[in-house]
Amino acid sequence: MTVASFQMFSEALGTPQSVNVILPPPERIAEASILYLLHGLLDDQTTWLHRTRLLEHAQQYNLVVVMPFGQRSFYTDQKTGYAWRTWVAKELPEKMETWLNLRGVGSRRHIAGLSMGGYGAMKLGLSEPQRFQSIGAFSGVLDLAGAAQRSERSDAIVPDLIASFGSPEAIAGSGDDVLALPLSVDGPRLFVTCGLEDSLLEGNRRFRDRVHQAEVPLVYEEMPGGHEWWLWDLNVEAYLAWLAELGLLTRLDP
Amino acid sequence: MTVASFQMFSEALGTPQSVNVILPPPERIAEASILYLLHGLLDDQTTWLHRTRLLEHAQQYNLVVVMPFGQRSFYTDQKTGYAWRTWVAKELPEKMETWLNLRGVGSRRHIAGLSMGGYGAMKLGLSEPQRFQSIGAFSGVLDLAGAAQRSERSDAIVPDLIASFGSPEAIAGSGDDVLALPLSVDGPRLFVTCGLEDSLLEGNRRFRDRVHQAEVPLVYEEMPGGHEWWLWDLNVEAYLAWLAELGLLTRLDP
Amino acid sequence: MTVASFQMFSEALGTPQSVNVILPPPERIAEASILYLLHGLLDDQTTWLHRTRLLEHAQQYNLVVVMPFGQRSFYTDQKTGYAWRTWVAKELPEKMETWLNLRGVGSRRHIAGLSMGGYGAMKLGLSEPQRFQSIGAFSGVLDLAGAAQRSERSDAIVPDLIASFGSPEAIAGSGDDVLALPLSVDGPRLFVTCGLEDSLLEGNRRFRDRVHQAEVPLVYEEMPGGHEWWLWDLNVEAYLAWLAELGLLTRLDP
Amino acid sequence: MTVASFQMFSEALGTPQSVNVILPPPERIAEASILYLLHGLLDDQTTWLHRTRLLEHAQQYNLVVVMPFGQRSFYTDQKTGYAWRTWVAKELPEKMETWLNLRGVGSRRHIAGLSMGGYGAMKLGLSEPQRFQSIGAFSGVLDLAGAAQRSERSDAIVPDLIASFGSPEAIAGSGDDVLALPLSVDGPRLFVTCGLEDSLLEGNRRFRDRVHQAEVPLVYEEMPGGHEWWLWDLNVEAYLAWLAELGLLTRLDP
Repeated sequence: MTVASFQMFSEALGTPQSVNVILPPPERIAEASILYLLHGLLDDQTTWLHRTRLLEHAQQYNLVVVMPFGQRSFYTDQKTGYAWRTWVAKELPEKMETWLNLRGVGSRRHIAGLSMGGYGAMKLGLSEPQRFQSIGAFSGVLDLAGAAQRSERSDAIVPDLIASFGSPEAIAGSGDDVLALPLSVDGPRLFVTCGLEDSLLEGNRRFRDRVHQAEVPLVYEEMPGGHEWWLWDLNVEAYLAWLAELGLLTRLDP
Repeated sequence: MTVASFQMFSEALGTPQSVNVILPPPERIAEASILYLLHGLLDDQTTWLHRTRLLEHAQQYNLVVVMPFGQRSFYTDQKTGYAWRTWVAKELPEKMETWLNLRGVGSRRHIAGLSMGGYGAMKLGLSEPQRFQSIGAFSGVLDLAGAAQRSERSDAIVPDLIASFGSPEAIAGSGDDVLALPLSVDGPRLFVTCGLEDSLLEGNRRFRDRVHQAEVPLVYEEMPGGHEWWLWDLNVEAYLAWLAELGLLTRLDP
Repeated sequence: MTVASFQMFSEALGTPQSVNVILPPPERIAEASILYLLHGLLDDQTTWLHRTRLLEHAQQYNLVVVMPFGQRSFYTDQKTGYAWRTWVAKELPEKMETWLNLRGVGSRRHIAGLSMGGYGAMKLGLSEPQRFQSIGAFSGVLDLAGAAQRSERSDAIVPDLIASFGSPEAIAGSGDDVLALPLSVDGPRLFVTCGLEDSLLEGNRRFRDRVHQAEVPLVYEEMPGGHEWWLWDLNVEAYLAWLAELGLLTRLDP
Repeated sequence: MTVASFQMFSEALGTPQSVNVILPPPERIAEASILYLLHGLLDDQTTWLHRTRLLEHAQQYNLVVVMPFGQRSFYTDQKTGYAWRTWVAKELPEKMETWLNLRGVGSRRHIAGLSMGGYGAMKLGLSEPQRFQSIGAFSGVLDLAGAAQRSERSDAIVPDLIASFGSPEAIAGSGDDVLALPLSVDGPRLFVTCGLEDSLLEGNRRFRDRVHQAEVPLVYEEMPGGHEWWLWDLNVEAYLAWLAELGLLTRLDP
């Protein structure tokens, strides 16, 4: 299994970016699937690799894993700041899938993330449902509008929300509100997990209820634990195994 | 000569940062000087290393070179955004000089940069004159307030100026206006260069005139060329040689 | 927690080397302990970081973790090849402990590794017992002379053993034979683990018996599993927790 | 321009390797040419990037530059050691050209290097003339057999020559002797430079005479200077410009 680190200029952001990529063996890459894996508020493009056994999990499958940086942007084209959403959802995939000979990937794309990255994955995935076969959100901020109004934790992100959305109040009901995005039985398969002691649990339940109401299939799991890396290590492992069971990922011969 | 890359969390920014560092031989580091070297608008912490022969130039001296990332922030604690100035001028030096056993460095500090980084170096250096022995600005945006009002180029940076300063108009006369910062004969030694075809030439001349009026010593050079890397390669080489002539840098035995 | 990557020239090897280092907060580093963590036959200086949750485990303690590359050298000054042992045991520690302000570390040093790296850790640690407070060997090749004579696996390493030792037969009873190195109750604390399905199990038992005979304290654990990363992830976590229990590592305030 | 760093396992070597790659814009890569650029005895896969303005030079052309590591192997399948030649000449190109969608590159391949890497480029290039359109050797060790017999410098490399070739004497006349490899007017275009104060000058002249005798076209230049990086910076710039003049490299629109 190969880990590549790309240092490249983003036109959308107007600034260079580091992107980490896990690659399968070259002779298998033409039929590989591709997972865009997003990080949380305090992380960067290296954190998934450094804090979980992601490489161990990923190497079992014919899978490219692309890990961009999203700063504290909530993967948004910011009101004041930079076009992080365009970078992650459009410019980066176009570049990476061209360089890596993946233009034939069709819709063999997946998107997942943790916390802020779980929000980002759900937002980007539901907004372009035809591009993605699945969405994974681990401890995701799935009710961002609600989270912005509650708790001490939210204080720390108010400046980020102002930069990204103009104001915390601007989120609810907009295209940046995951709870307001259209759902469809033909859309990407959904995989959502949250720890029982996580302050984001309620938002995850709200999302679950909404998906159930829409009668859209959903894997939803609550488990002991808080907002913690050991959980996300298990979550991403389970998510990949589930994709393989669904036939959406193929195993590499050991 | 050693190149180290640090992936670390910035408390000031609330997000991880990559920092590149050139290190002298360990047995010489206790008496080393330290240069903070800042990049331009479209660059990052790798660009000085990748686009110039900086490593060749630096390895002649007993010098630590620290290259942080400053995005497109003009090294400012931004009105909307992040505290880049605090990161570059305060948090990062405290951390790096502690890790690298440089707490005895006293004022053996230098700061330099190109374009936006030349502006940053001059701003940070003149604001804390007792911390730095010299400031180098290569094709620096030394009249940022003026540059913000002129030319097509400025259009591209208006959003950056709004994020950093509130508005382009807020710069003139403020602590972010290099032309308004106090100068002193006891301050850091100044080294300023600009290409004759560079649109920033006039701003550099304005800075030169101001320094001359204040009767503060200044090395100032204009040379054929535009806003280009081959020039900055020569500039940083000349800047280091000048510091050695002044006795502010010691040579390593070859 | 910070991850630094050093690209540096090794005088002992005559060739540049990459070294990865986990760093604690700078204000705590003066009292930090230091762990040299060695990789296995097919790995490099990045593998511990990429395949385990090492960063998660290490960040709880005031600990510098230094991860060098040892190629397939068995951490030996090779008969034909390079002085890998001198690099890992002498040159690198001198350089790194000088750069990182750790000259006052005294004997707050630890050494551990997996498979070939478990062998290396035990060899280097027992050879300089006054320098190390503990040695950890996870699935270590503790009976290298025996392993060289058995099994198909050994075929693959015969060329490596010839390069390193002259011949596989030259190991037994030499300073490169872990089973022949002197043991002492005053030496480093020993922590040895091996999977029950690991072909190296017998060699680990031989080492255990020898330590018991010498009446030297030893933590020795066999557990379900083979020669696998998920085991080493648990092993290094348990090893660090054990060091903290012994008072040889201090916790960082969370 | 993008710089990518690949951390990958080499089957030929049995150990992981770092490879640095400069990439053109993705939309142009399908028609790009590819340059394998080899380093010298004391260098690694980062040195060309860190010590020259290679990135500045390369970004003008539609060119992929692949920079592998070759330790001190003289790019040889070593008698005692590792199969560096197979790695650099066969495994790496197959993998990289597959990942990067360059399977249609045909013979749009070039190989160049400095010192030991100039020797390697000439050896690998002349051995598979149909694969490469050009070979560049800057201060190359083109008469390795001769160099092995002369000078103090050679002492330092005798152990390397023994590991790679069995003995220094085994080189002359073998497939590892650049002066003994077949030349052809239909082979790759040749570009050779050497400094007038370089101890390798005589070997370069010997190669030049041999090529002239064979009536094979050759660009050959001697210039003031020794065995130095500033020369190689100019050499690689001139080599790429010459390829563009020949129509073997296309320029990118600025």
